[in-house]
Amino acid sequence: MFPSINFCSECGNSVEQKIPDGETLHRAVCPACQTIHYQNPKIVAGCIPEWEGKILLCRRAIEPRLGFWTIPAGFMELGESTEEAAARETLEEAKARVEIQSLYAVFSLPHVSQVYVVYRAGLQELNYGPGEESLEVTLMPIEDIPWDHLAFPVIRETLLRYVDDKHHKSPPVHFGAIPRQPHSSSSGTNPQKL
Amino acid sequence: MFPSINFCSECGNSVEQKIPDGETLHRAVCPACQTIHYQNPKIVAGCIPEWEGKILLCRRAIEPRLGFWTIPAGFMELGESTEEAAARETLEEAKARVEIQSLYAVFSLPHVSQVYVVYRAGLQELNYGPGEESLEVTLMPIEDIPWDHLAFPVIRETLLRYVDDKHHKSPPVHFGAIPRQPHSSSSGTNPQKL
Repeated sequence: MFPSINFCSECGNSVEQKIPDGETLHRAVCPACQTIHYQNPKIVAGCIPEWEGKILLCRRAIEPRLGFWTIPAGFMELGESTEEAAARETLEEAKARVEIQSLYAVFSLPHVSQVYVVYRAGLQELNYGPGEESLEVTLMPIEDIPWDHLAFPVIRETLLRYVDDKHHKSPPVHFGAIPRQPHSSSSGTNPQKL
Repeated sequence: MFPSINFCSECGNSVEQKIPDGETLHRAVCPACQTIHYQNPKIVAGCIPEWEGKILLCRRAIEPRLGFWTIPAGFMELGESTEEAAARETLEEAKARVEIQSLYAVFSLPHVSQVYVVYRAGLQELNYGPGEESLEVTLMPIEDIPWDHLAFPVIRETLLRYVDDKHHKSPPVHFGAIPRQPHSSSSGTNPQKL
């Protein structure tokens, strides 16, 4: 998931593992330039793009979980908001322009140090197609969601709640932790490609 | 905010700035071991701890914004959920045990590549006090919130909405981006100490 920290990225010196003054956890610290190298969880920003009761799903063209279905979502970049990240990922993966409408869910995946921030979004026009990371992009009626072919447990959890929310007048924003599932493939060879 | 990436943290070689295959942004890539060094925004997890209509605020003992007031909040660590991070920070900064109750807000700060995830929480017992990073911890009536002495614009935004929410029966979960403010001090010398 995260590269090892053996050397200081600032000055190239070997780092030491130690608890810095005033802290409680071991960190990689450079004895030459004193840089402390923190590692923190990553945000995966995504959205559920809606159009007349259907939602836009993507079939992954990349590992992990090549061939499985997901909502448009990916790692947030420096300098953007989570809303911008969700819209950018939708443009990249599904070639679709969306308007972010509301916060839908915040799910932590502690075992891979990721936090999914998911929005509801409206398709701005009926224009979409597979980006480089998708094999196929489909505007899907919710009764056709391919439950046995979803890419990750967090996608399943998100869509299960989405379907259930249809029965509620004002559904809550969902939150919580989603633990590692037996037999799931939630990590892969390319850590940035979610 | 983020250390420079001049050297590969895995193998110590000098890195190159280039756009990896299949990507669109420049990354630090190691020509020796091929590691791609991604940098992503950090999550600040916090909560508004409540007790009989009052909220628990901390006066900062560390830079940036030493002496100014904040809710308990800090950088999320690997392997935890945002809820666990918010509760841990409250224990560290305010020596208080809380029960996380609901998601309150998700605010992006694109200019510093941070995302605040804030929960409402209940104090589990009337037991609190300044941790190492706080000068003072107070259970404060909301009419006494020190608006001119809050640490960061995002804290002001969070508490403004909190006060306003008192007039609503079922207030929404707040979200959005909070841009850089003129004359604000939202960054400092120690990037991990928010």
